[in-house]
Amino acid sequence: MTSTPAFDLSGDVVALTRALCDIPSVSGQEKEIADAVEIALRACPHLEVLRDGDAVVARTALGRPSRVVLAGHLDTVPVAGNLPTTTTGEGDAEMIHGRGTVDMKAGVAVFLHLAATLSEPRHDVTYVFYDHEEVASRLNGLGRLVRTHPDWLAGDFAVLGEPSNAAVEGGCQGTMRVRITVPGMAAHPARSWMGSNAIHSAGAVLDVLRAYQPRRPVVDGLHYREGLNAVKIEGGIAGNVIPDECAVFVNYRFAPDRSVEEAEAHLRELFGSHQVEVTDAAPGARPGLDHPAARAFVEAVGGTPTAKLGWTDVSRFAALGVPAVNYGPGDPLLAHKGDEQCPAPAIRDALRGLQAWLA
Amino acid sequence: MTSTPAFDLSGDVVALTRALCDIPSVSGQEKEIADAVEIALRACPHLEVLRDGDAVVARTALGRPSRVVLAGHLDTVPVAGNLPTTTTGEGDAEMIHGRGTVDMKAGVAVFLHLAATLSEPRHDVTYVFYDHEEVASRLNGLGRLVRTHPDWLAGDFAVLGEPSNAAVEGGCQGTMRVRITVPGMAAHPARSWMGSNAIHSAGAVLDVLRAYQPRRPVVDGLHYREGLNAVKIEGGIAGNVIPDECAVFVNYRFAPDRSVEEAEAHLRELFGSHQVEVTDAAPGARPGLDHPAARAFVEAVGGTPTAKLGWTDVSRFAALGVPAVNYGPGDPLLAHKGDEQCPAPAIRDALRGLQAWLA
Repeated sequence: MTSTPAFDLSGDVVALTRALCDIPSVSGQEKEIADAVEIALRACPHLEVLRDGDAVVARTALGRPSRVVLAGHLDTVPVAGNLPTTTTGEGDAEMIHGRGTVDMKAGVAVFLHLAATLSEPRHDVTYVFYDHEEVASRLNGLGRLVRTHPDWLAGDFAVLGEPSNAAVEGGCQGTMRVRITVPGMAAHPARSWMGSNAIHSAGAVLDVLRAYQPRRPVVDGLHYREGLNAVKIEGGIAGNVIPDECAVFVNYRFAPDRSVEEAEAHLRELFGSHQVEVTDAAPGARPGLDHPAARAFVEAVGGTPTAKLGWTDVSRFAALGVPAVNYGPGDPLLAHKGDEQCPAPAIRDALRGLQAWLA
Repeated sequence: MTSTPAFDLSGDVVALTRALCDIPSVSGQEKEIADAVEIALRACPHLEVLRDGDAVVARTALGRPSRVVLAGHLDTVPVAGNLPTTTTGEGDAEMIHGRGTVDMKAGVAVFLHLAATLSEPRHDVTYVFYDHEEVASRLNGLGRLVRTHPDWLAGDFAVLGEPSNAAVEGGCQGTMRVRITVPGMAAHPARSWMGSNAIHSAGAVLDVLRAYQPRRPVVDGLHYREGLNAVKIEGGIAGNVIPDECAVFVNYRFAPDRSVEEAEAHLRELFGSHQVEVTDAAPGARPGLDHPAARAFVEAVGGTPTAKLGWTDVSRFAALGVPAVNYGPGDPLLAHKGDEQCPAPAIRDALRGLQAWLA
C-alpha cells in the first residue's frame, strides 16, 4: 500500500483521536481503519510494518536489550448516533464526545503518535493494533496473532491501552463459568410427594453461594477481589409438572494467584455433591510489576497501580509469558455508553507519561 | 337431525366404548362424535336432547324429587398411533387398547348406555357430554355451559366419569399459581459487590418452600393433602451480568376447606416480604357426600371414597352449588399415555354400579 496517509500521526494527539473515531469501525468492519493505520505507519521509515487480517503490527529494530509492546484494539461496539465526534469546553475543560473516544481510540491515538515520533525509543517497541476485541473471544484479533504470529508479540512487558483513567491497572482476574445441574423427579403438582422438586433442591446450591466469602488476596503487591455469582438459573417446564431438573449457571472470578485448574478444583470442592460442568474458562494474569521495564513504566506514568478485576486481553500476553498492564486515558465506566466521552487533557497526560518512559 | 344412529347404545358397553374411541375426537375436532351422540340420543323417546356447540345434553323429565347429573367429555388428547382400538385377552382378562379407552370414552359409554336403557330411573337424570376438556380451561365445554345454560346443569348431585379405577373420588383440591419476583441490581461479575444478585436473594423464597409443611386436612370425611411447589424459576440475562431479577413460579394445591381468597392470603403471609402476583386460580370442591343421593350412590357402587387431589371439572359443578364426585372405569395413570388401555370388566362393573344406584 502506498497511498497518502489519511491522518497526521505526528500532530495533535486529540485531533488524531477524533480522526480515528470518525472512521467508524464496529467489530467486523475494521478494514477501512486498519488500512488507514497501515498506510500511516508505513510512512515512518524507522518502523517495520506487518499485517494479519485487520491487525496491524509495527516495530522498531534498534537492537535494544529489552522490548516492550503497546497494544490496542481498533474496533468499537455499535455506534449509537454518537458519531462523528463533537467537542465541548476549552483548554483543561475540553471534552471529546462520541463512540470510541474512551474505548479505545484515545489509547490508540497515543500509541500511534508515539510510533511515528519516537524513532529512537529507550526500549525496542512493538505496536499492535487489532480487530474484534468487542465480540466473541474466539474472533479476537490479538488471540489470532497469539495463534498465527506469537513472535510478533514477543517482549519483556506489555501495555494494553484500555481506558483506566490513565492509572496503571495490573494483571487481570481469571473467569470460569460452570453449569450446576440439580436433578429431580417429575410428578403432578397435586401429588408432588410422588416426585422430587429439582428447584427446591437447587436451594442447596444457592445456600453455598449466599454463604460464600470471596477471597481478597494480594498478588505482586496488588489487591484483588474475587467473586462467585449465579448469573442464570432455569428450571421447570410447565405449570403442572414438578420440575425434574434445575440448572444454576455460576461465574467465578478468581485472582491471578490461582490457575484455571485450581479454580475448577475449588468449585468442585464447594459444590461437591452436585454435577458441575465447566462451560468456559480464561486464566488471569499476574501484574508482573517486578520486571525492571514495568517498574520504570510505573515510575514514569506516576500514580499507584491497582489490580484489574475484570478479565482483559492482558491475559493473552500472560499466556505468552509477557507480563502486561492496562493503562489508557478515559473513564472505563463510560465505555459502551451512548454518552461516551473523554477529556482531552487525559489523552495528552497519557502521551506525556509514555513519552517520559520511552523517550 | 334424523339420521340413523352410528352405534347401538343399548348393546354391549365394551363394544360401545370401542365404537366411541374409533371416532377420533381430539380437542377441537369433536363435531363428528357429538353429531353421532346427538343422533343416538334423539332416538330415545324418553329423553329431551339439547345441543350447544359440540356439547350434547339429554335429560329425563319424570318429576322425580331429585335430579342427578352424569357428565363426561367427548374429546381426547392427540392420537399417538393408537387408533383404531385393539383388544387383547378374553373374558376377565379382556383389555381394550387405544386413545380414549381410559380418558374417558369408557365412562362416556357407560353413561350413554344408561341414558338409552334407563327410561324410568330412580332420580331424574341429566346426561352431559362436552367438548374441549383436554385443552385450555377457557375453552372447556362444561365451563361454557356454566356460562350459557347453567339451568341445563342443575341437580342435587353430579358424577363426573373421569377414570378413577371405578372408585369414588370426592371433590377436588383447588389450585393457585403465583409469580414471586425477587429484585436485584445489575453489575459486572468482576465487581459483583457493586450490585445485588437477584438469584442469590431468591434463595430466601426456596428456603420457605423447602421448610413448608403442607396441610393434610379431613374435609367431609375425606383426607386431602396439600402441596406447595416451585414449578418454574428463571433469572439472569447473560453470562456477564449480575442478575437484576429472578422469578419463582409457585403452584399451591389446596384442600376444599380453603377458598381461593384464603389460599391467596396464606401465600401472601408466607412470602410476605416478596412481590407476589396471582397468575391463575381455580377453587376446589367439597366432596358433598352428605347429600342423600350421594350417600346412596356411594352405597350402590361400593368401596371407600377417597379425596380427589388434582383439580377436575367437579369444581365447575361446585361453583353452581352442585356437589360432585369423580367415578369412572380405568386407571388414571394410563390417561394420555401411548399404551392407554382399559380392562373390559372394569367398564361392565362401573355400569352395574350405576345401574344399582339408578335403576
